[in-house]
Amino acid sequence: MPALTLHPDRLFPAETTTRDVARRLYETVKDLPIISPHGHVPPQWIADNTPWTDPTSLLLSPDHYINRLLHAHGVELSSLGVPPGKVTLSDDEARAAWRTFCTHWPVFRGTPVRYWMEAELVEIFGVDVRPSAETADAIYDQISATLAQPDFRPRQLMDRFHIEFMATTDDPCDDLHYHQQLAADSSFTHRVAPTFRPDRYLEPARDGWTALVDTLATVSGIDTESYDGWVKAMENRRAYFKANGAVSSDHAHLDLDTTPLPAGEASRLYRKARAGQITTEEGDALRRTMLFEMARMASEDGLVMTLHPAAFRNHHTETFETYGPDVGADVPMAVEATRALRPMLDAFGTNPTFRLVVFTMDEAIYGRELGPLAGFYPSMFVGVPWWFIDAPDAIKRFRKALTEPAGFTKTSGFIDDTRAFLSIPARHDMSRRIDSVHLADLVVDHRLEEDEALEVIHDLVAVQPKEVFRLG
Amino acid sequence: MPALTLHPDRLFPAETTTRDVARRLYETVKDLPIISPHGHVPPQWIADNTPWTDPTSLLLSPDHYINRLLHAHGVELSSLGVPPGKVTLSDDEARAAWRTFCTHWPVFRGTPVRYWMEAELVEIFGVDVRPSAETADAIYDQISATLAQPDFRPRQLMDRFHIEFMATTDDPCDDLHYHQQLAADSSFTHRVAPTFRPDRYLEPARDGWTALVDTLATVSGIDTESYDGWVKAMENRRAYFKANGAVSSDHAHLDLDTTPLPAGEASRLYRKARAGQITTEEGDALRRTMLFEMARMASEDGLVMTLHPAAFRNHHTETFETYGPDVGADVPMAVEATRALRPMLDAFGTNPTFRLVVFTMDEAIYGRELGPLAGFYPSMFVGVPWWFIDAPDAIKRFRKALTEPAGFTKTSGFIDDTRAFLSIPARHDMSRRIDSVHLADLVVDHRLEEDEALEVIHDLVAVQPKEVFRLG
Amino acid sequence: MPALTLHPDRLFPAETTTRDVARRLYETVKDLPIISPHGHVPPQWIADNTPWTDPTSLLLSPDHYINRLLHAHGVELSSLGVPPGKVTLSDDEARAAWRTFCTHWPVFRGTPVRYWMEAELVEIFGVDVRPSAETADAIYDQISATLAQPDFRPRQLMDRFHIEFMATTDDPCDDLHYHQQLAADSSFTHRVAPTFRPDRYLEPARDGWTALVDTLATVSGIDTESYDGWVKAMENRRAYFKANGAVSSDHAHLDLDTTPLPAGEASRLYRKARAGQITTEEGDALRRTMLFEMARMASEDGLVMTLHPAAFRNHHTETFETYGPDVGADVPMAVEATRALRPMLDAFGTNPTFRLVVFTMDEAIYGRELGPLAGFYPSMFVGVPWWFIDAPDAIKRFRKALTEPAGFTKTSGFIDDTRAFLSIPARHDMSRRIDSVHLADLVVDHRLEEDEALEVIHDLVAVQPKEVFRLG
Repeated sequence: MPALTLHPDRLFPAETTTRDVARRLYETVKDLPIISPHGHVPPQWIADNTPWTDPTSLLLSPDHYINRLLHAHGVELSSLGVPPGKVTLSDDEARAAWRTFCTHWPVFRGTPVRYWMEAELVEIFGVDVRPSAETADAIYDQISATLAQPDFRPRQLMDRFHIEFMATTDDPCDDLHYHQQLAADSSFTHRVAPTFRPDRYLEPARDGWTALVDTLATVSGIDTESYDGWVKAMENRRAYFKANGAVSSDHAHLDLDTTPLPAGEASRLYRKARAGQITTEEGDALRRTMLFEMARMASEDGLVMTLHPAAFRNHHTETFETYGPDVGADVPMAVEATRALRPMLDAFGTNPTFRLVVFTMDEAIYGRELGPLAGFYPSMFVGVPWWFIDAPDAIKRFRKALTEPAGFTKTSGFIDDTRAFLSIPARHDMSRRIDSVHLADLVVDHRLEEDEALEVIHDLVAVQPKEVFRLG
Repeated sequence: MPALTLHPDRLFPAETTTRDVARRLYETVKDLPIISPHGHVPPQWIADNTPWTDPTSLLLSPDHYINRLLHAHGVELSSLGVPPGKVTLSDDEARAAWRTFCTHWPVFRGTPVRYWMEAELVEIFGVDVRPSAETADAIYDQISATLAQPDFRPRQLMDRFHIEFMATTDDPCDDLHYHQQLAADSSFTHRVAPTFRPDRYLEPARDGWTALVDTLATVSGIDTESYDGWVKAMENRRAYFKANGAVSSDHAHLDLDTTPLPAGEASRLYRKARAGQITTEEGDALRRTMLFEMARMASEDGLVMTLHPAAFRNHHTETFETYGPDVGADVPMAVEATRALRPMLDAFGTNPTFRLVVFTMDEAIYGRELGPLAGFYPSMFVGVPWWFIDAPDAIKRFRKALTEPAGFTKTSGFIDDTRAFLSIPARHDMSRRIDSVHLADLVVDHRLEEDEALEVIHDLVAVQPKEVFRLG
Repeated sequence: MPALTLHPDRLFPAETTTRDVARRLYETVKDLPIISPHGHVPPQWIADNTPWTDPTSLLLSPDHYINRLLHAHGVELSSLGVPPGKVTLSDDEARAAWRTFCTHWPVFRGTPVRYWMEAELVEIFGVDVRPSAETADAIYDQISATLAQPDFRPRQLMDRFHIEFMATTDDPCDDLHYHQQLAADSSFTHRVAPTFRPDRYLEPARDGWTALVDTLATVSGIDTESYDGWVKAMENRRAYFKANGAVSSDHAHLDLDTTPLPAGEASRLYRKARAGQITTEEGDALRRTMLFEMARMASEDGLVMTLHPAAFRNHHTETFETYGPDVGADVPMAVEATRALRPMLDAFGTNPTFRLVVFTMDEAIYGRELGPLAGFYPSMFVGVPWWFIDAPDAIKRFRKALTEPAGFTKTSGFIDDTRAFLSIPARHDMSRRIDSVHLADLVVDHRLEEDEALEVIHDLVAVQPKEVFRLG
């Protein structure tokens, strides 16, 4: 039965000079608190300190990184408890799903899923055998037994993981009562902040937009029949979020275009949208105006604006109709930044209140566009690799592409961007290791002195995320 | 006179820990049979066991990898025996062409052509001096003498190379008599399969299309005056190919778009095409419909569909007019996959009978688009690097870009894609070496245990190509 | 106080086998003369042997590589003496600017700016402490004192730097009197050549174009009211440049498109432009025709044509209005080559007189488009990394992307492309080191013998630039 262990030198290179430097750098940051300025953990978990029940509903059903690769090997999503929260597996089905996962363990070779899951199994659950058809049941039982213990509930794990700050992702109309519950709870010493995520309200040509904007009116108490009303209602909700601890807004659309329409034209298209008569092209044009308007608001209220563009959502119609969104059927696309971001940066790029963090899964633009932009505009930072490229080799490429045009100080610090709560420590640890390796590379070929590399690795973990996200 | 030798550790890294792992992995696969599911060796060579005559007509004239770089240094293509089969060089001219090649040996430094040719010279012909103006004649004589021996004919080399399976590339109207001759020959123990390559029949706006479709009608016995007839005739020829051993169809167009026209519109454009009145844009639209239709057929007959898009063919008009196609004047272009493949994958991507392998020379889409797509759709696989990127550093980039989003099991296994028969062993050997190095990298930084890496390298060489191409 | 030193093995890898080979290769070229076929040093500096006054006006104010990163950290450009030549800082202000730079030294960690500046400080000025707020004044004084010495004037440094050939960049209407002054000066033994840079004359839709073309008429003595006149005037100025030693023309536009308009249409659009009535789209179309025409001229007069496309200039309006161009607010964009260059290469790509060198900051096209093009067309060469990607990791990627499809002999040799005169030796040294490392990589994994690598590194430094730029 092959053992499952975590090598202390994992992700470090074999070449000993470089490895020694990497070890020394990593050693100084490995135990620092986790700062997580962008993620998708449900705030209810923390607020209610909900106990988890079984390995499958915790680790498999909600994790689209896992679901997609199992689906690619012919596994039905429903058998994995997808969509999570809507399908409830019986005990036998949950156990069978876990067995499916363990049987497919070789499928994950070389993927970051494997890396994260190994860390979770060993460090959190004390598993010491490699997942396989033979070991699946025993591992399932071991995880289940661990989850039943009182110190394995979300708040206890936040302590154990040293999570100093964590942002959730929230709808503009959310009343944020879980955040208020946490803020009012003097026994809770971590900081959990909401994030303003208004994407759906900026897509006037999509189904359901009119109803959303009606809700926006109700929640804000501001009439949204006109574009001006929409703007005021958004300002109102941003203020509400800010008052409840939010530090940023997050935006994910198909492109980065921020070209504003003339005021009259925006109002006209908005009225068409309210009447359900806007075309897709007009909807895109209005959305770009709205995104520009969001930047204007950010330059006034100081919420950090993060952009996560160019994912083609719900690529497979039947899967979407059966299981809904976020089940692994999203696919990145190329994205353009230099022209697209120009209106926004031209207007606000040197405004000290405005702060923009641009993420991408299109690695081609890191060195070509984002580095040069962030290397000029004081307001702009480049987000670390995200989603499909939050993985060791991709992070190395990111650092190699960005360090030369923009150094370290114009990057965001690590973002885990996950709803897989238990993977948070492993994700941050991966980042700390790979950044240590990148810095070690610079040290051993004499581009950087080791005392400077020590400063950089500390800043990347402990300073940069706080400064970029204004954590105060 | 500098020696020509092959180092046993070639392509392995200098760092000893990694090299040792790579050696151990490679050792287990280096002698495994060659499976070649996509290539361009003429079936007649095998069927007739045609003896080769001279080094130039065998190694230079048909090899556009070599021709292009010599042309780029001012060598006239005609002096190299281009186009092969149409130009016949005298003995003196053939020898002079070889001398030109050897004189230009430094031009190939660092290119895969050099790597393959060195392997051929040393391992097949026993050459032990470096090619140069001084050594050209002696090498020419040595190769000529070797070729005259009876055990250096195609079938004997297939034995020697351990080629278990080899696919050729064939016109839909081909009667496949060479394949039938091989199938009927009980003394021939290798498997040689045709591949259905209908590109020209899917380009209704190109010169000569009408005549091709007439031939299609004649060969299939199905009237092709209507689009429905074209579809039925294609189905007929696919069935013929399948009955003659084909396992796949191959498609190479300028883009990957698979958006189908409404049925009536396709028929209308088809009629315009038959009348010679279709525009380029309409031709593109109809071709995309035809490609979608090919996927529908594949989802019924089970021929694996491979796509090799986005080569700008015959970039230089004068060269094309003088020498014809495939002489080194083709240039890759950027290609988009996420949107382009959506209609096809939306319709057939979870169909167990449908299987799609997408190749690209646009490395930007490996991690950004193809990995995420193949990591969701059970029907889709990513083809290994092809043509200009079938080379050590590019293969490393491919593995680094693809392993993280999609692992190993959604890649195609190695494809040599060559008409240079003698280079087949060297090409497969390069792939085995580089995959061993990639796996060794994962082992030494503790992302993968060595026992698992041993399984992966074996699967990549011996299992994956058979499964992906349904070799049974 | 941390020391500032240059490690003799800088940029070499830690792995000892590879490092040893790299050292041996580098050793043979490190002292070879510098050939600089494309750059931006003002010819007046050399002609007048102007003494430099202070560190800030020499090293900071004109260097947009530095300005942009300081600006990105909130430093006002005016405080750095931008725009150079128009703003004059007082002694105190110049010293304060230098202090700002030294205080921001950590911002440059891992950037090539840091690498170049360290070499300048240590090797030229003998600085031995790391720049910081504490050391800024002492370093300022040390540089100032050095600059006051007579052997630190431009001509003396050209001797010391072993600059054999240097090209400047010049307006077509320039009378080139500095170049004539240098040519007439028998005490000056270096070769300094002008470069014909006509960009502004090829943008008929831009403000000021009409006045420029008027000047062109005056200077050439050829009426430019018609397109034919423009062509003749350009030919006239190219001849003038050639007579004054020019070896190349340089062209930087938003894209690489070279599609010519029919003759009548070009004339028609030209007349509209002269009347100030051309649209942006028409201006682009006419510019592409003019660029094609430049290639035609090059195929007759033999000036090497270099292309530096796809920089979005003056991205930030306010900065442009306040400080003008070339202050760090330019951002690269994606660029397409395969289709765009086709008209030009189809017409002139095999013409022995025509020579084209294509540079890019879009790394995606190196392997995908430029390598395959240069690997076929005898007239075409690929320029080494430029501007944002003239940096160690980027140069490594360039060589890895280009060597496999095109080898070494179809690349341009190093181009420093700088107005930072004192950084020229460090830039060439960086290139020699990184090329040595790339070659060492090929040697240690047995793709190239060391005697061949020695030939290549010599050719890249001493032969290739002379051959590509026809330095005779």
